Amino acid sequence: MDVIEVIVRKRDGGELSTEQIDWVIDAYTGGRVADEQMSALAMAILLNGMTRREIADWTQAMIRSGERMDWSMLDRPTADKHSTGGVGDKITLPLAPLVAACGAYVPQLSGRGLGHTGGTLDKLESIPGWRASLSNEEMLGVLREAGAVICAAGSGLAPADRKLYALRDVTGTVESIPLIASSIMSKKIAEGTGTLVLDVKVGSGAFMKSVDRARELASTMVELGTDAGVRTVALLTAMDRPLGRAVGNALEVEEAVEVLAGGGPSDVVELTVRLAREMLETAGVSGKDPADALKDGSAMDSWRRMIRAQGGDPDALLPRAAETMTVEAPESGVLARLDAYAVGLAAWRLGAGRTRKEDPVSFGAGITLHAKPGDLVRAGQPLMTLHADETSRFERALAALEGGYEIGPAAAEQLPLVIERIG
Amino acid sequence: MDVIEVIVRKRDGGELSTEQIDWVIDAYTGGRVADEQMSALAMAILLNGMTRREIADWTQAMIRSGERMDWSMLDRPTADKHSTGGVGDKITLPLAPLVAACGAYVPQLSGRGLGHTGGTLDKLESIPGWRASLSNEEMLGVLREAGAVICAAGSGLAPADRKLYALRDVTGTVESIPLIASSIMSKKIAEGTGTLVLDVKVGSGAFMKSVDRARELASTMVELGTDAGVRTVALLTAMDRPLGRAVGNALEVEEAVEVLAGGGPSDVVELTVRLAREMLETAGVSGKDPADALKDGSAMDSWRRMIRAQGGDPDALLPRAAETMTVEAPESGVLARLDAYAVGLAAWRLGAGRTRKEDPVSFGAGITLHAKPGDLVRAGQPLMTLHADETSRFERALAALEGGYEIGPAAAEQLPLVIERIG
Repeated sequence: MDVIEVIVRKRDGGELSTEQIDWVIDAYTGGRVADEQMSALAMAILLNGMTRREIADWTQAMIRSGERMDWSMLDRPTADKHSTGGVGDKITLPLAPLVAACGAYVPQLSGRGLGHTGGTLDKLESIPGWRASLSNEEMLGVLREAGAVICAAGSGLAPADRKLYALRDVTGTVESIPLIASSIMSKKIAEGTGTLVLDVKVGSGAFMKSVDRARELASTMVELGTDAGVRTVALLTAMDRPLGRAVGNALEVEEAVEVLAGGGPSDVVELTVRLAREMLETAGVSGKDPADALKDGSAMDSWRRMIRAQGGDPDALLPRAAETMTVEAPESGVLARLDAYAVGLAAWRLGAGRTRKEDPVSFGAGITLHAKPGDLVRAGQPLMTLHADETSRFERALAALEGGYEIGPAAAEQLPLVIERIG
Repeated sequence: MDVIEVIVRKRDGGELSTEQIDWVIDAYTGGRVADEQMSALAMAILLNGMTRREIADWTQAMIRSGERMDWSMLDRPTADKHSTGGVGDKITLPLAPLVAACGAYVPQLSGRGLGHTGGTLDKLESIPGWRASLSNEEMLGVLREAGAVICAAGSGLAPADRKLYALRDVTGTVESIPLIASSIMSKKIAEGTGTLVLDVKVGSGAFMKSVDRARELASTMVELGTDAGVRTVALLTAMDRPLGRAVGNALEVEEAVEVLAGGGPSDVVELTVRLAREMLETAGVSGKDPADALKDGSAMDSWRRMIRAQGGDPDALLPRAAETMTVEAPESGVLARLDAYAVGLAAWRLGAGRTRKEDPVSFGAGITLHAKPGDLVRAGQPLMTLHADETSRFERALAALEGGYEIGPAAAEQLPLVIERIG
């Protein structure tokens, strides 16, 4: 097979055959197709699209480039959730032990944050002793012990996706729905979960800014999962404002623990319970309702066992940033708008996020929100607290927040927390 | 500046600024923009196009990546011709000395053949002793001695184009009019000619298969040349059938010498004279008519001086292929059709062309045509003679010719030799 033929076919608007897709993914993983050839193909895919069949073949070829995990030895169904990423999105933390407490196994492979969105592994690593890297045997051990495990994907899982993602990142070819969908789903299908609930975020703080684009991505992923034998549903959820009141690694762990203790911000609780119900229902597990499991301590119990099984101390004090700064309401009124992207960017600049994959994150850095859109505020009242390891970071964070919130006579219209269900 | 911003702008259908184009060409030449980034940008340009201003900026940036030659010390105008390449297109060989004999200097940088089209340097190298590589001083010496020089472009001329062309060749991004036009024109403008006549070939044996695409390429190049202060015109000419009766390196040199001696096939003579008149008229040189200079021996004189000044012996016997094979007319009638691509491919397989840049060519290999479209033929009469160094090459050449010619009651419609003039 000839790589130029494959590129030219897609470039000229044609459909790639299954054989062409299998060959090009295999040859790229093996180094027989060069980066400059794959990036030209990725650009042609971004601009000319792929059919449902092509996306499915592309996803399967990436899965076949590595190992595929198998949890059929377990005595209960497996269920997992994937979020496309947002600001203050710590839902995975309470959700995984909650679903485990209600009777399904949750084997979750997570990622790290990049840009203005946080990563689940970065958040959990703020817990002293907690380890993200587990062998397959260790993963199984944690699952059996706690019912849930959250860890880093090993290098053996969809290596073609790993290589292609790094390439897309530097060649302006990230924003392609076929390539995004196949990247996410190749890892989730290879992970071996029986049920998958996708949380596709919409709004300024999300990757998908419009409901239409989010719906297209969600439908594509639901089709891919379904075609591969994974029971898959998707929720489109709001990311025009931050989720909850904490943005930043240790700050979000604290909020997750509040939720597991039966408290926490209402939007975080609502979305956690909704996603848990979707996961359990889709997995065919009935019995305890997730709302009850947050109240009766069983979800917290599962959380503590999970953290401990991965070397963490669930009772340890979490890192705190050395410096804080309060942002006060400039006038009295209603907090009309609080933009997710502005808050995410500010938290990133405070040290909560990273610019390059190699960068460290500050566990204590981030933002605590004292008011959410719709809340009444009085002039001079604290709107938010910024946390950073050095005071020098506050200026650029404040610049990011400029224009990111507004006080007015009434709340501006915002997206419903759950916009739509697909699947 | 950020390369991803540049790629994304073009990807999303935007127009690149002069600063962005200057930066990206400079950074690519310097190795600060990687091949995989440039190929993604090339694919975005191919699919989304460039405006006239962008193409001009792109061309200028490539010119600035290297040296720009200057012939202002000469006492007469300079004129050059560029052909987009065809089968049996040996026009440069008689044309350059002919124009010199009529009063303009012709400083021509030429290339080698690739694929089914031949290269001027390969043809001239079949003359024993002739050297393609000259220093700038040597070039000037040959020009002063013979009025014309044909040699290889040095590595200092438009190095950005050299690097980008090699990249496009392996990434399926060759067929973009903005990229083709800027590649050709950056070299021709850097070469320093005052006048340029473009011979844009159209038909099966050409790069541009349709008159519309050829016209678009020609107009783009004429605009680029004009904008850069080079008096530029273009002719669209026929390449649906081979030009002349000889296809192959030494065979074409022999035919060129026939033309310089006042003979030769009528289509080669007609096109040579027409292009010479265009070059002289555009350069503002009047006096001797090119048709006369072919008859009175002055063009031949210039040719002999040019060949000798580059180390060649104009009287030497040219290499001959060891083996020949005659293809006979299968029936009597009119040679209705003789496809340029089929003949070019057959000559290539006989050894006249190369597949990779590093391959050698056979100087003697090629095809002599004994009939041209419209000629009456009798069954059993020789249609063409194949020349190769080994008999083993004949079978694949015959396969290339299959369906490439047709004998019928009358000639099929063919393109006029000169289709259109632009500029």
